[in-house]
Amino acid sequence: MKEPKVIQIVGYKNTGKTTLVCRLIEKLQIDGFMVGAIKHDAHEFELDMEGRDTWMYQKAGADSIAITSDKGNETCIIHKKYTPLNKLIMQMKDKDLIIVEGFKLEKYQKIVMIKSEDEIELLSSLENVIAAVTWIPVKFNDLPVFSIDDINSILSLIYSQK
Amino acid sequence: MKEPKVIQIVGYKNTGKTTLVCRLIEKLQIDGFMVGAIKHDAHEFELDMEGRDTWMYQKAGADSIAITSDKGNETCIIHKKYTPLNKLIMQMKDKDLIIVEGFKLEKYQKIVMIKSEDEIELLSSLENVIAAVTWIPVKFNDLPVFSIDDINSILSLIYSQK
Repeated sequence: MKEPKVIQIVGYKNTGKTTLVCRLIEKLQIDGFMVGAIKHDAHEFELDMEGRDTWMYQKAGADSIAITSDKGNETCIIHKKYTPLNKLIMQMKDKDLIIVEGFKLEKYQKIVMIKSEDEIELLSSLENVIAAVTWIPVKFNDLPVFSIDDINSILSLIYSQK
Repeated sequence: MKEPKVIQIVGYKNTGKTTLVCRLIEKLQIDGFMVGAIKHDAHEFELDMEGRDTWMYQKAGADSIAITSDKGNETCIIHKKYTPLNKLIMQMKDKDLIIVEGFKLEKYQKIVMIKSEDEIELLSSLENVIAAVTWIPVKFNDLPVFSIDDINSILSLIYSQK
């Protein structure tokens, strides 16, 4: 089975990571690809499912909860623990491409978002950077640099990666 | 690695399945067990995460979405497709016990909820029934029968299963 291509979108807060991820997903989906999306969240999050049966399982103390519907064609799995990126990727092996938001220190090919001058140092401190997507003009060695609105060029670069 | 014990709670609508599942989870958790809970949902469900980044990934068209937090110690994985019970169980292999609500036609050991006389036929039509939990007096061969409030006895039966 072919492994999915994994591309990380990284950068500081409020540099437009989620927006870029969503715009890429939209295009990839139109192009007929099966897409996975994975996000690292630095905070606690609450799944707003109050009153639902799975929410009640959580409150009762279950460590893992799953719900699936054949009619709705959907599945939700919750684990009350952190899951490393490689394990999440393993659960999306049937996808063509997986876009990862965050997990800066991981090893996969990275597109780095740059909003201001002082963020440019990220380009040299991170591993496996394949492009920068920037709000300001940036020049960094021979690295491909795209404007935040140039989705088609960013996509072409992604398609061209092995 | 030891396989988790799997117990199904099945029965018709509004017979108290979710309540029983929650009461069992509470007790099991107090007894120090790692518990998984899996529910079959006959309907479509919407994860109420409007505005969250993962919700936006979904709307953009991602087929699988995951979010994990090291700070919050939690993970949520969503697949836009149905997942068979055995695959869900495989993702909870580190648990001691998995309680499954629904999936009547599956093969695991089952506790059947009975609220009225006409539901008693379930006891003979389902595979691998180990007990009935009932709102009314029921006698069925040598099958153990418990009242819906007798959580401790139901739990003892679960513990006694191989």
